[in-house]
Amino acid sequence: MYDIQERIAISFKSQGLMATIDAQLVLIAEGEVHIELPFSAHLSQQHGYVHAGAITSILDNACGYAALTKAPPGYEVVTAEFKMNFMRPAIGERFLAIGKVQNSGKLLTVCTGEVRALSGTIWKVIAMMQATIVNVPV
Amino acid sequence: MYDIQERIAISFKSQGLMATIDAQLVLIAEGEVHIELPFSAHLSQQHGYVHAGAITSILDNACGYAALTKAPPGYEVVTAEFKMNFMRPAIGERFLAIGKVQNSGKLLTVCTGEVRALSGTIWKVIAMMQATIVNVPV
Amino acid sequence: MYDIQERIAISFKSQGLMATIDAQLVLIAEGEVHIELPFSAHLSQQHGYVHAGAITSILDNACGYAALTKAPPGYEVVTAEFKMNFMRPAIGERFLAIGKVQNSGKLLTVCTGEVRALSGTIWKVIAMMQATIVNVPV
Amino acid sequence: MYDIQERIAISFKSQGLMATIDAQLVLIAEGEVHIELPFSAHLSQQHGYVHAGAITSILDNACGYAALTKAPPGYEVVTAEFKMNFMRPAIGERFLAIGKVQNSGKLLTVCTGEVRALSGTIWKVIAMMQATIVNVPV
Repeated sequence: MYDIQERIAISFKSQGLMATIDAQLVLIAEGEVHIELPFSAHLSQQHGYVHAGAITSILDNACGYAALTKAPPGYEVVTAEFKMNFMRPAIGERFLAIGKVQNSGKLLTVCTGEVRALSGTIWKVIAMMQATIVNVPV
Repeated sequence: MYDIQERIAISFKSQGLMATIDAQLVLIAEGEVHIELPFSAHLSQQHGYVHAGAITSILDNACGYAALTKAPPGYEVVTAEFKMNFMRPAIGERFLAIGKVQNSGKLLTVCTGEVRALSGTIWKVIAMMQATIVNVPV
Repeated sequence: MYDIQERIAISFKSQGLMATIDAQLVLIAEGEVHIELPFSAHLSQQHGYVHAGAITSILDNACGYAALTKAPPGYEVVTAEFKMNFMRPAIGERFLAIGKVQNSGKLLTVCTGEVRALSGTIWKVIAMMQATIVNVPV
Repeated sequence: MYDIQERIAISFKSQGLMATIDAQLVLIAEGEVHIELPFSAHLSQQHGYVHAGAITSILDNACGYAALTKAPPGYEVVTAEFKMNFMRPAIGERFLAIGKVQNSGKLLTVCTGEVRALSGTIWKVIAMMQATIVNVPV
């Protein structure tokens, strides 16, 4: 796990979008990755809440990196597709995206994920993802 | 259509995320909306291409505003869910998201969309969306 | 719960497709419904395993009826959309579809579900669903 | 195309489910396949319309076989995942599923599809699919 943690940290840092939206990588475990995003008016949709696209961006990464923890040596991962449900507006001080591997095959990994909106010590699930990620040789 | 065009333009301008990623609203027609995004390293994933999350953000908006052109008077729209397929890396100078209404009911609108990567005069479809949008009273 | 259990049992019995494929309603709880399907060559795809369409049929019902347990009085439910991932071929003696409500709003319910293939006492998850279900007045 | 047409016809005939629901393969072209299903009370949901699972079954096949027309020699196809939207109840005398390849890579093919309900000479689109299909060596 040490190597993969370092590899994910380096990859995350090289993503311009994560810096632009100020997202942080907060947990890397076997088959599970967490990414946090603070609220910012720079990420808003028309009502001032965080835009679905920003929420999707951190959850896509959380699922993709979770899949990477399960990829065979010498492989990297590419998101083939995902589906998002948005259950509540993204209202909160911070947002936590949790991506989890549900099944990892030689070729394809299926992940699920959720984004939680955090207000003080209270959190609510605001969005859910089901994603298919492909292993490709580096 | 005039009122809805103005309403969409105002809504688009009020989205912090669209300014942050420098996206432009380029076409509003009955049931169809186009949004353009220039390449920027600030939007990159780990290989320097545009991040799937930025691509999804403009297509989500294109589909949502396309749905709004068909919403009953006194209603606004909320994205309930979408599914994205990513067929090619987002390589190009500009990206054009095209959202189209496929079916609009009283309650739900189904849209499809695509994002085209533009390099000079050549474009390729890099991503596709199928989305469900809800009409909610303003 | 008694009324809703009876209502679901009657609805299930009135579905011609469930009789045709010999599916059984095996559990109705608050926010969770299980449906079982025995293997049959009448449901096969080209390799002799159970067809993805039959697997989807029982999981769509499990999610829909799970949503119905949470619908307001005087409402029924309609599946607006779902997404299925197929992780393994449907090989087994029996298949158990488990549908669960993840979020129920006034208008929309989001469910997730899985289908397990059972061989003796061993089971494996072969498919997963994320679905959006609409409450409509009866 | 001759070989692939024969191969698809043989595969279709070997599917127990297609016989059980009485579906017919009606068109095979490069990147496009049509499958027809007559109405039957044996396929109904609780209101007497055709069940979403039967509609999904024919469209899954139409997309899968469309993908097969584009697969490299020596490969067959497996549905990794699909997403369905249901826009109208499946009311009609016959139902036509149309699957089309949108993009075919070495590994993955993305298809879209629709199901039309036919009543006399009138048809309406009742459902739409976006699917990801994997090429696997035979």
